[in-house]
Amino acid sequence: MYAISLGDDGAELRPLEPWHAEEFLANLERGREFIGQFIPFGQQAVDVSTARETLQRYADMRAADTGSYHGIWLDGKLVGGVLTLNFDAAAGNAEVGCWLEPAATGRGLITRAMRFLIDWAVEERGIHRVEWIAASGNVPSLNVARKLGFRRDGVHREAYPYGGVRHDSEVWSILAPEWREARGRAAHNQ
Amino acid sequence: MYAISLGDDGAELRPLEPWHAEEFLANLERGREFIGQFIPFGQQAVDVSTARETLQRYADMRAADTGSYHGIWLDGKLVGGVLTLNFDAAAGNAEVGCWLEPAATGRGLITRAMRFLIDWAVEERGIHRVEWIAASGNVPSLNVARKLGFRRDGVHREAYPYGGVRHDSEVWSILAPEWREARGRAAHNQ
Amino acid sequence: MYAISLGDDGAELRPLEPWHAEEFLANLERGREFIGQFIPFGQQAVDVSTARETLQRYADMRAADTGSYHGIWLDGKLVGGVLTLNFDAAAGNAEVGCWLEPAATGRGLITRAMRFLIDWAVEERGIHRVEWIAASGNVPSLNVARKLGFRRDGVHREAYPYGGVRHDSEVWSILAPEWREARGRAAHNQ
Amino acid sequence: MYAISLGDDGAELRPLEPWHAEEFLANLERGREFIGQFIPFGQQAVDVSTARETLQRYADMRAADTGSYHGIWLDGKLVGGVLTLNFDAAAGNAEVGCWLEPAATGRGLITRAMRFLIDWAVEERGIHRVEWIAASGNVPSLNVARKLGFRRDGVHREAYPYGGVRHDSEVWSILAPEWREARGRAAHNQ
Amino acid sequence: MYAISLGDDGAELRPLEPWHAEEFLANLERGREFIGQFIPFGQQAVDVSTARETLQRYADMRAADTGSYHGIWLDGKLVGGVLTLNFDAAAGNAEVGCWLEPAATGRGLITRAMRFLIDWAVEERGIHRVEWIAASGNVPSLNVARKLGFRRDGVHREAYPYGGVRHDSEVWSILAPEWREARGRAAHNQ
Amino acid sequence: MYAISLGDDGAELRPLEPWHAEEFLANLERGREFIGQFIPFGQQAVDVSTARETLQRYADMRAADTGSYHGIWLDGKLVGGVLTLNFDAAAGNAEVGCWLEPAATGRGLITRAMRFLIDWAVEERGIHRVEWIAASGNVPSLNVARKLGFRRDGVHREAYPYGGVRHDSEVWSILAPEWREARGRAAHNQ
Repeated sequence: MYAISLGDDGAELRPLEPWHAEEFLANLERGREFIGQFIPFGQQAVDVSTARETLQRYADMRAADTGSYHGIWLDGKLVGGVLTLNFDAAAGNAEVGCWLEPAATGRGLITRAMRFLIDWAVEERGIHRVEWIAASGNVPSLNVARKLGFRRDGVHREAYPYGGVRHDSEVWSILAPEWREARGRAAHNQ
Repeated sequence: MYAISLGDDGAELRPLEPWHAEEFLANLERGREFIGQFIPFGQQAVDVSTARETLQRYADMRAADTGSYHGIWLDGKLVGGVLTLNFDAAAGNAEVGCWLEPAATGRGLITRAMRFLIDWAVEERGIHRVEWIAASGNVPSLNVARKLGFRRDGVHREAYPYGGVRHDSEVWSILAPEWREARGRAAHNQ
Repeated sequence: MYAISLGDDGAELRPLEPWHAEEFLANLERGREFIGQFIPFGQQAVDVSTARETLQRYADMRAADTGSYHGIWLDGKLVGGVLTLNFDAAAGNAEVGCWLEPAATGRGLITRAMRFLIDWAVEERGIHRVEWIAASGNVPSLNVARKLGFRRDGVHREAYPYGGVRHDSEVWSILAPEWREARGRAAHNQ
Repeated sequence: MYAISLGDDGAELRPLEPWHAEEFLANLERGREFIGQFIPFGQQAVDVSTARETLQRYADMRAADTGSYHGIWLDGKLVGGVLTLNFDAAAGNAEVGCWLEPAATGRGLITRAMRFLIDWAVEERGIHRVEWIAASGNVPSLNVARKLGFRRDGVHREAYPYGGVRHDSEVWSILAPEWREARGRAAHNQ
Repeated sequence: MYAISLGDDGAELRPLEPWHAEEFLANLERGREFIGQFIPFGQQAVDVSTARETLQRYADMRAADTGSYHGIWLDGKLVGGVLTLNFDAAAGNAEVGCWLEPAATGRGLITRAMRFLIDWAVEERGIHRVEWIAASGNVPSLNVARKLGFRRDGVHREAYPYGGVRHDSEVWSILAPEWREARGRAAHNQ
Repeated sequence: MYAISLGDDGAELRPLEPWHAEEFLANLERGREFIGQFIPFGQQAVDVSTARETLQRYADMRAADTGSYHGIWLDGKLVGGVLTLNFDAAAGNAEVGCWLEPAATGRGLITRAMRFLIDWAVEERGIHRVEWIAASGNVPSLNVARKLGFRRDGVHREAYPYGGVRHDSEVWSILAPEWREARGRAAHNQ
């Protein structure tokens, strides 16, 4: 029912729900290898039933106000999404994340969606510090963070075991005042 | 983050969440006597904490896909809402309901919001039969149902104890084909 | 331990418990096709283990005071039963239901058992409105309701998907004063 | 609904349920001092709400098939009851217990009720060993056990802290063949 | 991390935890036939996963303060253990038990470990009565109890179904003052 | 029962359990102002009952293998402790923490206890990365981390709201090979 237009190309952001299991699975299947380079996102969703279980976990997180998942639809097709996790309104802290199938990259979809998501977190929910965490080698992800105005707080050495290797894990953040300033700059530039 | 414009007067439909507890309580306080004429809606919400508990129950229903609550904001103020309950996508059945504070009546807000809600239930979620249940004496509610195209299926005699009296409970319904036809007629009339 | 004599033919009504799983399964096996014409009763019970699970759900309903299941034994064999569900003592509302294997029909067993069950609901538990719900096509069931004094409150159009078809669902009811009067008449006739 | 006649004086055995909370509390109030001499039975039930909680625990035990509570009604008044606990049908072991308000003693009510309860445990549920446990000083209780045919298996030294003292706890038992023989003797004597 | 030396042969007592699943399974495999003569200890642990489940149940008992499991390591190999169960600090009652693979018998390991365990129960946790329960035929187990100073409280006739037979079950106990005296005697003898 | 000697002054490390509630409360009472300068440790424990609840949460973490609490006893008095949290054996990551009442500072108790705890995590449980997190202003804590060989991975800007201020939160870590090397150096120096 709800949808946010992400721009003139018809891309839309919508809540991602358990009843999207088939679309979610199709999105994962198209992007599994690409997405799986750096993160285990969606690895437990291998058929409609397990896709629904994965989405149900997100639905339960939303009900508990500890996270939320939002799909990006392009030309009526679910191509990726953005999410909050470790959402802690009382402490004013939250982490954001994202995934995208390869055919939908290069259009700034994540950046556009993140602007709405972080705006909501900061302005409607009072989050003071938004975190972005990625493996050091996940350059595309870190580039989006940088572009959105995030700054690097540190590198957790060998903190992230994935694919048989312990990767360094980078922690970036943006604080509410920084977000508002970055947003102002972005508006000015457009 | 998400909002649906309900028309030129700026009215909006948005998901109603536990963190809206203060706004929800204020809405209930302004409408408690009026809303309480026919239904116990919100009676357990008497302070911010119990208002949050009430909204949390709705959030849990949404996570379980058995219901959903949506607030209507007018001039930035939560004035009422529409909801699904007994939502059963597998059986294709769902019930809808609503509440409104008195100062917001007479503008067709419920009718406008219901059009989005029932459209979503019928077209996105595959609900075949939408039910509307109200006490026989709740004429304003039954009038909205009639106006939306619902038809009366029956009167459950003395089924609804409220305010010390056993009221008859009317069950109205609209089926998916009827809904589509009613929507077509409404579009044609505008 | 407990048993109620239903008449001179030795028929008895007893609480139906999880440890009756084998008898319950045998009863279902003998009646599966017949019972399954109109209701999915017992369809998940396909072996002793699933029969016990079904009975355990009933046992949990009884513990929660939301329902109760009672078997009818004829010549020492479980042949069917009567039940309450959606039992709500606070609201004074309850629904009743029944099942029977075909070889035990035509003896008035359900009618006899229902008299005890509804009497208990009305007189011991203070239920004001007893409901009987059946598909419009389930003539035998509706005939028993009529014979017991129930009256039709309405027809929920296409409310009941079963066997690939959406059936109309009839809602009949009897109110406590009506029940007492019907009982008096029945006593007078005997 | 269900009741077992315990004899010509109109005493009846019935399932004891959460909705008997008021009668159960009244029974406890009349017998609290007497019952409390040796056992903490009903000590947490001090008003209707806590009486209902106590009965709900019994109802949950019944649903789990680990115990069952049965009230004894005399002249329409709940005066005591018999119970199973630590009921383990798989192992063939169960414990029985009882309580009675003082005005109802001296009539053999417990003995009469126990005959039905133990018969059910042994013959319908396949219990091989029925246990009776009481403090060494609880002579009236041990006398009932002896009269029913139980034999003393042992004395658990200082096993039972109650009323500030560690009492010896006697364990008596009757095995299924012994029960059948005792029952035969009792029938012969009558 | 924690370990108690049981003597000059290097035997050690340590908490037994879910992450010992592989060692526990190996211990059971070496002792399954021997241990299984009288008790079903470890029978559900047939691979690493079920061994972990068994240890997890013990871990949950420890968290609930109703029991604790302690492994005996000899030459760096888990060879058996001692345990508390039915631990009730409020009532001052607890039961103890043990298991050992055959190659580790004859060295007094259980006796040595029990001294620490019962000392802890009595002196640190305030247990007044420690129980030892074994089938009448389990002579080695009863001999250890006797050697530790336990006395026989009774024989529960046919209380223990195991291996297709109902065994008599012996209940032995030692009370806190008796334990202290036995310990003094043991110290004097050494 | 279990205890690890921390040195010649009689200091001991022991599992900290719910039944230590009174000692734990006394320790907190003596250290509340001092400990509360930088961390909310033990703030919910204000009487024996809430102290037990706090310890029960730790006990549940231990059962789930996500953390463990260990008390430091000096002269038979609980004066502080060390702990693991966010313990993730599968990922090879864990965090450590500590608390101490002021009278027990200056003796290296935390350092001594941490050596055992981290050794256990690294050598027995296979933890690869041990984390130490503290507010930037908590110099004593960070000094202990540095002394143990931890290195600073980053500063999470304004991540930690405490006492009405958003503090920077420092993340330090030591990896398994670094720990082994640091331990070797420490042994050589002694």
